[in-house]
Amino acid sequence: MINLAIFGAGRIGCVHAVNAATNPSIRLKYIVDPVASEGRAQLAAKTGAFVADADAVFADKTIAAVVIASSTDTHAELLDRASEAGHAIFCEKPISFDFATVAEVTEKVERSGVACMLGFQRRYDPNFRKVRDRIASGAAGRLEHIVMHSRDPAPPLRSYVERSGGMFRDQAIHDFDMARYLLGEEIVKVYAVGACLIDPEIGAAGDIDTAMVTLTSKSGRFAQMVNCRRAPFGYDQRLEALCSKEVLYVRNRPRDEVVIADVNGFAAAPPMNDFIERFAHAYSEEITAFVEMIETGKKPLADIRDGLEAQRLAEAAIVSMRSGQPVEVDPSWRP
Amino acid sequence: MINLAIFGAGRIGCVHAVNAATNPSIRLKYIVDPVASEGRAQLAAKTGAFVADADAVFADKTIAAVVIASSTDTHAELLDRASEAGHAIFCEKPISFDFATVAEVTEKVERSGVACMLGFQRRYDPNFRKVRDRIASGAAGRLEHIVMHSRDPAPPLRSYVERSGGMFRDQAIHDFDMARYLLGEEIVKVYAVGACLIDPEIGAAGDIDTAMVTLTSKSGRFAQMVNCRRAPFGYDQRLEALCSKEVLYVRNRPRDEVVIADVNGFAAAPPMNDFIERFAHAYSEEITAFVEMIETGKKPLADIRDGLEAQRLAEAAIVSMRSGQPVEVDPSWRP
Amino acid sequence: MINLAIFGAGRIGCVHAVNAATNPSIRLKYIVDPVASEGRAQLAAKTGAFVADADAVFADKTIAAVVIASSTDTHAELLDRASEAGHAIFCEKPISFDFATVAEVTEKVERSGVACMLGFQRRYDPNFRKVRDRIASGAAGRLEHIVMHSRDPAPPLRSYVERSGGMFRDQAIHDFDMARYLLGEEIVKVYAVGACLIDPEIGAAGDIDTAMVTLTSKSGRFAQMVNCRRAPFGYDQRLEALCSKEVLYVRNRPRDEVVIADVNGFAAAPPMNDFIERFAHAYSEEITAFVEMIETGKKPLADIRDGLEAQRLAEAAIVSMRSGQPVEVDPSWRP
Amino acid sequence: MINLAIFGAGRIGCVHAVNAATNPSIRLKYIVDPVASEGRAQLAAKTGAFVADADAVFADKTIAAVVIASSTDTHAELLDRASEAGHAIFCEKPISFDFATVAEVTEKVERSGVACMLGFQRRYDPNFRKVRDRIASGAAGRLEHIVMHSRDPAPPLRSYVERSGGMFRDQAIHDFDMARYLLGEEIVKVYAVGACLIDPEIGAAGDIDTAMVTLTSKSGRFAQMVNCRRAPFGYDQRLEALCSKEVLYVRNRPRDEVVIADVNGFAAAPPMNDFIERFAHAYSEEITAFVEMIETGKKPLADIRDGLEAQRLAEAAIVSMRSGQPVEVDPSWRP
Repeated sequence: MINLAIFGAGRIGCVHAVNAATNPSIRLKYIVDPVASEGRAQLAAKTGAFVADADAVFADKTIAAVVIASSTDTHAELLDRASEAGHAIFCEKPISFDFATVAEVTEKVERSGVACMLGFQRRYDPNFRKVRDRIASGAAGRLEHIVMHSRDPAPPLRSYVERSGGMFRDQAIHDFDMARYLLGEEIVKVYAVGACLIDPEIGAAGDIDTAMVTLTSKSGRFAQMVNCRRAPFGYDQRLEALCSKEVLYVRNRPRDEVVIADVNGFAAAPPMNDFIERFAHAYSEEITAFVEMIETGKKPLADIRDGLEAQRLAEAAIVSMRSGQPVEVDPSWRP
Repeated sequence: MINLAIFGAGRIGCVHAVNAATNPSIRLKYIVDPVASEGRAQLAAKTGAFVADADAVFADKTIAAVVIASSTDTHAELLDRASEAGHAIFCEKPISFDFATVAEVTEKVERSGVACMLGFQRRYDPNFRKVRDRIASGAAGRLEHIVMHSRDPAPPLRSYVERSGGMFRDQAIHDFDMARYLLGEEIVKVYAVGACLIDPEIGAAGDIDTAMVTLTSKSGRFAQMVNCRRAPFGYDQRLEALCSKEVLYVRNRPRDEVVIADVNGFAAAPPMNDFIERFAHAYSEEITAFVEMIETGKKPLADIRDGLEAQRLAEAAIVSMRSGQPVEVDPSWRP
Repeated sequence: MINLAIFGAGRIGCVHAVNAATNPSIRLKYIVDPVASEGRAQLAAKTGAFVADADAVFADKTIAAVVIASSTDTHAELLDRASEAGHAIFCEKPISFDFATVAEVTEKVERSGVACMLGFQRRYDPNFRKVRDRIASGAAGRLEHIVMHSRDPAPPLRSYVERSGGMFRDQAIHDFDMARYLLGEEIVKVYAVGACLIDPEIGAAGDIDTAMVTLTSKSGRFAQMVNCRRAPFGYDQRLEALCSKEVLYVRNRPRDEVVIADVNGFAAAPPMNDFIERFAHAYSEEITAFVEMIETGKKPLADIRDGLEAQRLAEAAIVSMRSGQPVEVDPSWRP
Repeated sequence: MINLAIFGAGRIGCVHAVNAATNPSIRLKYIVDPVASEGRAQLAAKTGAFVADADAVFADKTIAAVVIASSTDTHAELLDRASEAGHAIFCEKPISFDFATVAEVTEKVERSGVACMLGFQRRYDPNFRKVRDRIASGAAGRLEHIVMHSRDPAPPLRSYVERSGGMFRDQAIHDFDMARYLLGEEIVKVYAVGACLIDPEIGAAGDIDTAMVTLTSKSGRFAQMVNCRRAPFGYDQRLEALCSKEVLYVRNRPRDEVVIADVNGFAAAPPMNDFIERFAHAYSEEITAFVEMIETGKKPLADIRDGLEAQRLAEAAIVSMRSGQPVEVDPSWRP
């Protein structure tokens, strides 16, 4: 039985807590959240966990693993303390908005030798996974290029934008990760354009709401990304992988399978609008993989190094957008 | 070069005339239509054919073939005269609204030995044909049952209904034919229900606008038909063939490939609304097959006997609907 | 807090037990299953319920509600005892394979005044419900006819077939129910054909694997059903409701949203193959509705009378198939 | 009646000749092709036109219009002679592989005052046109960004590649044009990456087979292009326009509407593989528009200036790809 503490009782913290509480290998012992919210109390009641502070968690020698799902500004310190304590770690992305900190913490965690899994949940989604497996199996032939679309249903609140780290670090980071993951190699060149075309509030907060990115991989293959803070029909998360024998698509998952037809044609339901619902299965798979990593040493699909590398591309995209020039990246590149 | 006469300069007559006129093996010599319409004149001008009457056609010894696309009440006599004259015949369905006449003319034409092809254009449509070929190839396994939907975009005018022969003879006849064609055997039992649910004008004309039919084949397999004079989105012509290894579907062909997405979901275009456009390719293939039948003796996909047998099922459906009981049919059955 | 006992620890019993155990208004006190299986023990451990026998349940005066998900031959007696005990009841269909028993038990339960909900889970499925709501709202116009497809992924084992009550009572009963539900009135005429076309083992067990049914409602509208024990691609549960302004479709829910394209075209995933997964949401909604029925008196979407009426149609279909004639049904009709 | 000469009796020349010959306002008088092919002879026979050389055409004072569908190296001279002769012109793209020549000829033609329409047939395709009209109507809201996919079914022959002008001028030019057309303003910045990833023969010919392009418009909006010489399933021509109220998609048009379902899922037909078939309707609309331009002075959807501007973007993409840097373009930019 793995004694577990979860940091963060927000939306994603709740998802992980419920998945952990129903996992037969986990005993969810602590929930840590500085805000004494009703949600925190309900979550504790529902899962049978204690509400505690970080010091209590790190003082408890029975704790073997932590889930870090608190606000981004706390990740680095918690990663630090957890790796020192020798805990297995599952950390939500991003590690920090400051790339130097990301690099430093990654080094520390890796040196500590603890197992650390990063929350790139798309890697655990059955759709993206099926595409990855199909490529890995050789059935699709050689992957030649990738096109990805990530659009939010509606612009986030200005308050969210201001503490999000910006669209590249907050939203596009999943696409940077997926490009590396599917191509199976590092990206060496990033070109990005971006602008505030949709919501002036986002611009006032110093961020963009529309971006297009072109990535070139070490072996010379390409990935193209469209990122946007709005899609009129809802949450838009798609991928197209052109391989030599097949083209593989991840399409959106509709809310239901009802079609309504009239003189205007055939109207199918919009996609699931909420990442909590859209990726429910992926989040559940993450906890299963986390347990497996702890119990058997099996490598997770994404580790802290993947967090570092995806963020390096986000930083390069920011530099490219600001300078108007493509940016060449290598393992030593920093913004 | 085949010297051809076409009877009928209405919508379907025009389609055949244009297809015939552009066929390199055909010389379209005469257009026969008792109505001195502008359409008739334009068609003659466009195709270089003469406007003539039936007597002139049958007096011309150079004529080798006729297309009968005039009104249904003229079919029987024209079939009679054309078969006596030894012409190859392409006749639109139905042969007559009177089944005794249908049977009699079919016998005469067959005895005359002339080649006679019937206008069941769905057999020449690339979609229905692909399904038929897939079944014939064995790839789909054994055909076990069929479901067919035929719905018109909107109720026809009362004047059309009154001279249509009724929905079973006019519209459902294509489904009766397709059931026989795909099953590759005769139907031995017909059960039909029907009512006027949509347009009271149709009821006032003594006809129905909605029907459901269950067919049992000689070997005990089933086909189900839905027939309707209205589909809110347009012309609805679909088929589903359940086979032991595959299910084969003919879906509607949309008008275009534009999708419009908004908060209500994804709206795809309605199907092609007009049988002239929907079956344009099939009509063209019919003329090609007609030429091939004349030049090489190749059997057409549908002959006059197929017209007789499909209509027998239409007559049985009418009897079943009126009596409320299933009707057993065999080659000697008559209404 | 509602003290609940569940009868049956098979597949569907487990689903209800887990949903009940996580419902905040329910205390799942007893699990009753005569077979001392590992599943029963695990279910008890997982839900914190006691394993007990029926006598213990009915002796416990704190019990307020029962879920009857045991084998069909036990339903009638349990309905009887539970209604005598004044418990709220949620019973899986069918009530009994013997129609006289169904009718008798329905009378008893209704006389007893207990609230009794029947497990027609499709009524709680978001897709079928959306169609029902759309019709009820008037947006679709008047419902004119319905077409339903129910096909199992593969023929069941002969042992299952032998105790299933036959395809009409076991599988098609959901379609009989849906026809009544959507049309909002009773069916007055049933015509059914059926045969064993697919699996000789089913025929050897005295059952059929393929059926087609035509229903006529009191007001003269129609519903058509296709029922089959096999669909080559998996579980096939579809509906098409033609209304005066719209056509409403329930399509299958695919397993995933990956499309694989190659020279043969675009291959989309097969539908969810398992009713437990396909209707997971509906089963969860059923328990929510059961609690609501108990706590607020809100009528469930399906009650025991709906079970009786759907089964009457199944019995009529059997008589029709055997006699080769349509069967007229009214509230007094019995096989 | 417009007396017309067509230059070029290759595939696209034939399409235009047949469309022109069946247009009631056109008399197709001459077909000019230096190669004495069987195709040229058949085309002449089919359309009733004379085979002639260019001098004969320009000597004939009854000629009012020319279609230039000959090889690209002849376009500039023919445009020159035709504009001097005062003929209305319909010219296939590109005008020349040499940008200085394109610019020079464009100036000459414009100065001459003759009406000159350019063969960007996608503008006449009902799908792209529906998207354009939807945007123009305001129903979709403001266009914010565009994503385009253009993939050929299979790499062309090396001999074709060598005389094609390269992928940007030959294939991607349609996307450059569509970006300008939909955005309704000029592009001011072009970034392109490209490589030979698929067919080494293309690389040996000095060309690329895969490219990704990012365009920034004057007002700061974006368009993204994927161009490729192979798609495993066939001809891939799609567009996605994100607007503030709707997303508009042009999808591929499938060859047929048959779906084959088995245990692997649902296989829909691949798209029409051939641009002649895919754009058959667009080519026909072009000739109609050409006649309308001549008879009524109505501006065509694409004129020679559009040819110049699209090619400027193709040239900028080539420079960008070679330099690795984005290229800023304005009306005076030249490679």
